Amino acid sequence: MADTKVYTASTTAPVNIAVIKYWGKRDTKLNLPTNSSLSVTLSQDDLRTHTTAACSSTFSTDTLILNGESQDVSGARQQACFRELRSLRAALESANSTLPKLSTFPLLIVSENNFPTAAGLASSAAGFAALVRAIANLYELPQNPTELSRIARQGSGSACRSLFGGYVSWEQGTETDGSDSLALEVAPASHWPQMKAAILVVSAAKKGVSSTSGMQATVATSELFSHRANVVVPQRMEKMKQAIKERDFETFADLTMKDSNQFHAVCLDTQPPIFYLNDVSRAAIRAVDEINKKAGKKIAAYTFDAGPNAVIYYLEENEQAVLGALNGGLEGVEGWKNVTASADVSIEEAFLQPLKEGITRVILTRVGEGPVRVEESLVDSQGQPIRK
Amino acid sequence: MADTKVYTASTTAPVNIAVIKYWGKRDTKLNLPTNSSLSVTLSQDDLRTHTTAACSSTFSTDTLILNGESQDVSGARQQACFRELRSLRAALESANSTLPKLSTFPLLIVSENNFPTAAGLASSAAGFAALVRAIANLYELPQNPTELSRIARQGSGSACRSLFGGYVSWEQGTETDGSDSLALEVAPASHWPQMKAAILVVSAAKKGVSSTSGMQATVATSELFSHRANVVVPQRMEKMKQAIKERDFETFADLTMKDSNQFHAVCLDTQPPIFYLNDVSRAAIRAVDEINKKAGKKIAAYTFDAGPNAVIYYLEENEQAVLGALNGGLEGVEGWKNVTASADVSIEEAFLQPLKEGITRVILTRVGEGPVRVEESLVDSQGQPIRK
Repeated sequence: MADTKVYTASTTAPVNIAVIKYWGKRDTKLNLPTNSSLSVTLSQDDLRTHTTAACSSTFSTDTLILNGESQDVSGARQQACFRELRSLRAALESANSTLPKLSTFPLLIVSENNFPTAAGLASSAAGFAALVRAIANLYELPQNPTELSRIARQGSGSACRSLFGGYVSWEQGTETDGSDSLALEVAPASHWPQMKAAILVVSAAKKGVSSTSGMQATVATSELFSHRANVVVPQRMEKMKQAIKERDFETFADLTMKDSNQFHAVCLDTQPPIFYLNDVSRAAIRAVDEINKKAGKKIAAYTFDAGPNAVIYYLEENEQAVLGALNGGLEGVEGWKNVTASADVSIEEAFLQPLKEGITRVILTRVGEGPVRVEESLVDSQGQPIRK
Repeated sequence: MADTKVYTASTTAPVNIAVIKYWGKRDTKLNLPTNSSLSVTLSQDDLRTHTTAACSSTFSTDTLILNGESQDVSGARQQACFRELRSLRAALESANSTLPKLSTFPLLIVSENNFPTAAGLASSAAGFAALVRAIANLYELPQNPTELSRIARQGSGSACRSLFGGYVSWEQGTETDGSDSLALEVAPASHWPQMKAAILVVSAAKKGVSSTSGMQATVATSELFSHRANVVVPQRMEKMKQAIKERDFETFADLTMKDSNQFHAVCLDTQPPIFYLNDVSRAAIRAVDEINKKAGKKIAAYTFDAGPNAVIYYLEENEQAVLGALNGGLEGVEGWKNVTASADVSIEEAFLQPLKEGITRVILTRVGEGPVRVEESLVDSQGQPIRK
């Protein structure tokens, strides 16, 4: 009798926000970066992708459904992930002939985000991490997250960092086949669980320039870029790892802000220039600088990815000071919680007014865990997607 | 009998707008730069400082009156200019005892701009160039503009370039006393008189960060800056001089835009970051990029100094194409002249709308001559300032 069973496995995976930025590929096919990067994984309570991987001999073709909509899976990135994972499964099947031949079955991947996609919220990182983790669960692969990160990286570079919780580096590697371009845990979330993050969503408008084309324009035309990639970032990576090990927030904040600024600086040094920050982003930078000035030390750190949204990191012990200082600008915004300003860290109305006008939503979150295997399936026993 | 005569001499001096930017000092006292720079001198028909230098044994103290208001002359920069010029005059007087002892008389400097000061329009460059040139005229100094540029540089770095018309370099020099940090004529205005410039005044609001403090913050904190100063700019200087010699506008435009972007990139790489461009500036950049794209070649080049105002260089032969494309966004703005758009270079309303909202004034001008000795005096024979 042919095996007509529908096999399923499910996972959730987190978003990560880099503090040392990935920008530039040395190999666009394999997503090999020009420099290492480092990120904080954010809590899945607030931002997560939930993905079920299913396979069955009864399926006709590989299929991916994201938030209820069928996606094209013919792209090289999707195909690379499917091919690599099938190859690992095929090796298990060769070694143990009693295993079902899942590697030969078409796949059905069903994925749901609990946050709006394409709002510059790193959805592709969570998406590819969840896809790889879910299929690895389905295939019962023995590979650890670092080994799987090699595959997730081929889907979306920064996805490799979402296979771990806590503080995660992506080591650029030197091999041309990318075999040593992998994610490593710098420290688990439990090492420094006090790290919180406020995401200020500036606008849900689409990005001007996609990060994929933007970063290659920078590599091709910025005359400052190679100095950043080859000289500046390697030093910052070491300092940042040390700061995380020592739970040294001031150094963490200093490097985070500097690296965000430098990433946007090389975007501006691109020809034609790439702008992700707008006047509202700049107002958020000014507000954080002012909070730190008033506090007399760095208690908050901004960082911006390839879009205008601000992510502000701070420690739980400074929540009242940081959020209190911003309260006048963000009161009433969706997702914000009112915090009474503390007397010693208040900033002038002029810093807050642009936030009032430009921030449409806030997500208050914190450092969190890596992918978690879950029972809840998005595919039923007949192989049909379940809409939540 | 004591000499009680009031001696006077007058000059006008132009504004210059750099195409390879000066940003960073290796010596803050002498205004010695970390890199060479290159500028276009703009026509005095549109932007000029008119200055009269007077001296008399009857004056009680050195005095400077700018636009009718007394200025402090005790600052090191003013004092350096007065001291150096007096020293050159004293040498003449020693060699020829029949000369009146002007070097021993207090100075009265009266200066008027024909444009609003401090609107980011390089008024200090024109101001110090006029001051040095007027006193040199008063003292009948034989020194040529390059020799005088050593003195003007100590007043305001970029002032040294305003002692020449046309296309002017400021060679950074290597001597610690600044003796070889001088302005040179790359080409006179007559070599390439077709160069025109549209200055889009974004806002008359004061600068956020003065260029003097801003550039030293960049030198101290930007990790990209030294690569720009030591590696990138020297190459660009050579290419830019060649482009001007060959009247190669496409290369001129390419380098001008790249260097403006890189200057603002190192400002952004400064900690805390320095922002001079705002959303209106960015809209001007986008509009120029779009004009060049539609034209199929670079016919316009933007550049921004330490403020949000855009300066757009273009050749006279492309005036209709460039101004015509911008007409929809600038019609009715003070200083603009309506130009019918040409059919082949028109840009979409989306590029023009932010200009409509953000540009308060336009100055249409062109490459022009250096300082010109004029008869019209701003000091009367009694040594009293004349208000125009």
